[in-house]
Amino acid sequence: MAGRLIRRAKVTRFSPGASAMLREDALAVEEPLEIRVDGTSISVTMRSPGDDFDLVAGFLVAEGVIWSADQLVSMRYCAGTDDSGMQTFNVVDAALSAETPPVDVSLRRHVLTSSSCGICGTASIEAVHKSAHFGRLDDATGWDHALLGTLPDRLRDGQKVFERTGGVHAAGLFDTSGELLCLREDVGRHNAVDKVVGWALREGRLPLAGTALQVSGRTSFELVQKAHMAGISVLAAVSAPSSLAVEHAESSGMTLIGFSRGGGFNAYAGADRIS
Amino acid sequence: MAGRLIRRAKVTRFSPGASAMLREDALAVEEPLEIRVDGTSISVTMRSPGDDFDLVAGFLVAEGVIWSADQLVSMRYCAGTDDSGMQTFNVVDAALSAETPPVDVSLRRHVLTSSSCGICGTASIEAVHKSAHFGRLDDATGWDHALLGTLPDRLRDGQKVFERTGGVHAAGLFDTSGELLCLREDVGRHNAVDKVVGWALREGRLPLAGTALQVSGRTSFELVQKAHMAGISVLAAVSAPSSLAVEHAESSGMTLIGFSRGGGFNAYAGADRIS
Repeated sequence: MAGRLIRRAKVTRFSPGASAMLREDALAVEEPLEIRVDGTSISVTMRSPGDDFDLVAGFLVAEGVIWSADQLVSMRYCAGTDDSGMQTFNVVDAALSAETPPVDVSLRRHVLTSSSCGICGTASIEAVHKSAHFGRLDDATGWDHALLGTLPDRLRDGQKVFERTGGVHAAGLFDTSGELLCLREDVGRHNAVDKVVGWALREGRLPLAGTALQVSGRTSFELVQKAHMAGISVLAAVSAPSSLAVEHAESSGMTLIGFSRGGGFNAYAGADRIS
Repeated sequence: MAGRLIRRAKVTRFSPGASAMLREDALAVEEPLEIRVDGTSISVTMRSPGDDFDLVAGFLVAEGVIWSADQLVSMRYCAGTDDSGMQTFNVVDAALSAETPPVDVSLRRHVLTSSSCGICGTASIEAVHKSAHFGRLDDATGWDHALLGTLPDRLRDGQKVFERTGGVHAAGLFDTSGELLCLREDVGRHNAVDKVVGWALREGRLPLAGTALQVSGRTSFELVQKAHMAGISVLAAVSAPSSLAVEHAESSGMTLIGFSRGGGFNAYAGADRIS
């Protein structure tokens, strides 16, 4: 699988005061994944190949289509070949249980739009709140601030592809003892979160009470929404949150941490969970 | 407008070995923008408010809907109000000229999907290449490597919102003398590029021969595609490109620069434009 995650490329290196130099570099691989539900295409996302079933499962949780493992009957790679006739492994079909509400036309449109931004339409913030299956997060688990301050380093220690390419985002799920439960890397930061949530769904762990999700980069509305849909009550990022990320964290009862660096951080919402 | 771009928030600051402290912080504002064409909703994106007409114009260029200023007859904010009855300025309707090919159902679906990722469907990479109105980039303008190495600092010098929030991406268009033609900031890196391209379209400057686009962050397939659709032949980023970004840059004749830091950088494609 490592061969699918990193590709070697020739680059021309320009440095101040030196001649241009040809050398090899490692690139993070980016490929499209088409997600189908019961044979119908509902989204295409650009992602790092690998953990595709986690990605599909997490995407369906984020969109409110499923929220427990038994709704996901099976997943399989569909036939899809490149110019040379090789299987691309870039199309996944998920079969849902008969009890799962069908993905109707309006939801399909919702899914198509929201794959961009986690929101669709002017009234959609309300709609997203209503559709969160686990409701307002009332997880009373307390967190030690010293431990929360170590999560960025723990996340970085677990990353593999980033070291070689500098080109991927990461999301890691931790328990209150600081143990890493699941780490996923992806060229798309939303995908990294979907993959962690999908892993949790498939492990029967939703809602994810008593866990904190540490991500590289920034937090947008969409990342907060994804955490909310999975019942994650602590979301921490290395960089800044947006205004809507903070508003949505507040209204969903989530603890939102930003600028987590060197052991210190800001709590933008839900500071009462932190001691 | 500054009031719409930055919001003050109370945060709880946790530092190693110190008591938690309440203080004020500045957040980059994130709000949804619904894009309509001749009254029909085609996409919703989360963005920094401001330069919305540039964003809509650039989005339509990226999607291959328009490629010259005269196709864009008018743009206006539609009625859209929040709970307290205030105009939200979050819905923009663009009227296209009668000669512009209509946005048909299949394209609407394309637009909806690709707002996420710049690509839709398994055969879509080919489709994107075909739909680039300006074709393969054959701009013969040469670039001095020393000048290209200064663009990240020039970009950062021009940023306003980032300094106060740390939470926005930037895209800046430069000519071969290093003059900044247009700079846009946004919580979404794709939006920052759309806003620059939309500005250029409205100024009658497409295709953007003889210019380089410097962006913060990384380059994905989608950013390369957006540059290609605008006829930009040099795309430079502070961080890493993905494999598909490099492949698309090669096949479209673009110069792609990554890891531009401290005056040095890597050219991943089109190094022959650099002296």
